[in-house]
Amino acid sequence: METKNIGLRGIEVADTKVSNIDGEKGKLIYRGYDILDLTKNSTFEETSYLLLHDDLPTKAQLDEFRSKLKEARFIPKQMQINMGNWRKDADPMDMLQAFVSALAGYYDEEFSSKESSYDRAINLISKTATIIASWYRIRNDLPIIDPDPSLDHAANFIYMMFGEKPDPKIEKTFDTCLILHAEHTFNASTFIARQVASTRAHMYSAASAAIGALSGELHGGANYEVMRMLLDIEDINNVESWITQRMDKGEKIMGMGHAVYKTYDPRAQVLKELSRTVAEKTGDPWYKITEKVEKTTIEEMKKRKGMDIYPNVDLYSASLYYMLKFPMDLNTPIFALSRVVGWAAHIIEEKFAEAAPKTALYRPKAVYVGKYCGPEGCEYKTLDLRK
Amino acid sequence: METKNIGLRGIEVADTKVSNIDGEKGKLIYRGYDILDLTKNSTFEETSYLLLHDDLPTKAQLDEFRSKLKEARFIPKQMQINMGNWRKDADPMDMLQAFVSALAGYYDEEFSSKESSYDRAINLISKTATIIASWYRIRNDLPIIDPDPSLDHAANFIYMMFGEKPDPKIEKTFDTCLILHAEHTFNASTFIARQVASTRAHMYSAASAAIGALSGELHGGANYEVMRMLLDIEDINNVESWITQRMDKGEKIMGMGHAVYKTYDPRAQVLKELSRTVAEKTGDPWYKITEKVEKTTIEEMKKRKGMDIYPNVDLYSASLYYMLKFPMDLNTPIFALSRVVGWAAHIIEEKFAEAAPKTALYRPKAVYVGKYCGPEGCEYKTLDLRK
Repeated sequence: METKNIGLRGIEVADTKVSNIDGEKGKLIYRGYDILDLTKNSTFEETSYLLLHDDLPTKAQLDEFRSKLKEARFIPKQMQINMGNWRKDADPMDMLQAFVSALAGYYDEEFSSKESSYDRAINLISKTATIIASWYRIRNDLPIIDPDPSLDHAANFIYMMFGEKPDPKIEKTFDTCLILHAEHTFNASTFIARQVASTRAHMYSAASAAIGALSGELHGGANYEVMRMLLDIEDINNVESWITQRMDKGEKIMGMGHAVYKTYDPRAQVLKELSRTVAEKTGDPWYKITEKVEKTTIEEMKKRKGMDIYPNVDLYSASLYYMLKFPMDLNTPIFALSRVVGWAAHIIEEKFAEAAPKTALYRPKAVYVGKYCGPEGCEYKTLDLRK
Repeated sequence: METKNIGLRGIEVADTKVSNIDGEKGKLIYRGYDILDLTKNSTFEETSYLLLHDDLPTKAQLDEFRSKLKEARFIPKQMQINMGNWRKDADPMDMLQAFVSALAGYYDEEFSSKESSYDRAINLISKTATIIASWYRIRNDLPIIDPDPSLDHAANFIYMMFGEKPDPKIEKTFDTCLILHAEHTFNASTFIARQVASTRAHMYSAASAAIGALSGELHGGANYEVMRMLLDIEDINNVESWITQRMDKGEKIMGMGHAVYKTYDPRAQVLKELSRTVAEKTGDPWYKITEKVEKTTIEEMKKRKGMDIYPNVDLYSASLYYMLKFPMDLNTPIFALSRVVGWAAHIIEEKFAEAAPKTALYRPKAVYVGKYCGPEGCEYKTLDLRK
């Protein structure tokens, strides 16, 4: 009994123009542009336009895109009332999956053209933020805060969460996080979004499915697990013993290692620097603890297995979001808040890419290894003859 | 620019014990048992047990399973109220995707053990029926009908829909339909359910994603399209001209042809017979029209391309469900009503199969064919320099 092509690793499944990872050099490229250039120079709105449209916008295009995003922020009041009927302790990713897919129950756009898909993408990007913030307010018995059209996406999200406009440095930090998480080629959730789109299901349906995948602790859920680890470690003096004990038991250290990068994940590099800066300002211990987790894991891995290991995107985003006062169980929804952009870009590409034949829905082959009683099948025994 | 492994056709991705298709011989096997034996001898409940547990139940096991299914039928009243706030003309598959994923907001089972997964599967199977029937009643401004514990799954669903217990022949017919649609190895939705489960997301999350995939017209949506075709044809005398005109334009005939079967789909065979019997009883013209669609398409395909083509599972299920008075836009939800069983079986297998390494989340390779401006990426130009 041998499983073939486990996890499809290394199996080429489709062409894409959306992004590229050079795992050897530690480079992540969105539509031709290095992520490090984008975090330095661009904004979440501009990067979203780039990912969806294959090029950076002109000023007129960006103005129109930003204004459409702002207009699309409201969600139906009724949806917020429905949220109030959920268990307060429900997993926010479950909530997000349900309410993103519920958008289809309120909005009736057709997904029949590439043009309408862009509008649906805008709806999805803006409303995802409002859904997450609404849930945060509702479950804490706080009044819902309407979006503020004077604010850009990152600042508006923080405002809808906490009721205060963030200071410009915090806004910039969070905007950079959103750029960094927006897209990462064919990870599990993005590949699922493409597959759902390949059946010609619409964008909300595909994005909701992707949220389901992102909720798994092996995918987007990892940044929640990182923060749990940090809280469990608690103090910088506990790092070494905590890490070595886990490694003695053969357990993985969350936030360390990646299937694709063979060197430092460029996103981790930026997040580390952001985390350091925020911690300096707030006096939080989490940056230093995280840094020591990184250092200890690298050293132990080298010593024990002679292997190099590097932090992934989750290691520093966990503590960074914690210091920005986001509740840790919102780490993964905030990942989704940004990743919807990549999903939307891939959904549009899957449905409208000139190269792809329209009927290429994904249907792989399974290897049957179950019961076999000959070509006619096993004999059906009536209930009284079974033991 | 060349897409690799289009739609993953022929790519082996995993072992399975759940089912097997012999496309050459036209055989579909559930856990070792021929589907034709099961439709003749088994029930939906027993077949569900078989698919989930890898063998037919003893009497005691079946009794317990049936009674658990009955207990799990109620959904929260609040969920039904929420449904009332949707657009009445919303796509029922959108509704189903949202409310199956919303189950997680009301029920708090842990998906941490194989045993609890079986309970969640029961919850999913029973509540999917109640969600669909509730939506049907709500959108038609009819009072919701509570499940009837004296009835089995098929009869109870019809009762919750129409408020009348079906006659035994209709019950048996529908029960057989549910057996036939319960499982079909790695189709698009099942493969997606497995992938979501591979991230360690829970069963509602994975099933909701699968519903999203099934909603696409190239997958589960096809049986809706078949009925639209039949209604458009309207009269048996129009079949030939309708079909030849479509084929002249190079269009596909819905319900005909399958990616895997190279002969008569065994499910189509059973459904054809059921459709014939029901039509004889009701006097509906749809069986005969469907039969003529089959015959004409086969002949034309042979004449034009020298190819054999056969009906798939959608061709006769469409008219059959129509004659059973199900509104045609519920064809796909009713497909899901049954296919949740296969999804649940695969989700459990993906998460707990002894053979599979636990961390095999699916992450294939994409081929980057987009913009390239050298190893450093394209130059970022500020807004004022862009045209």
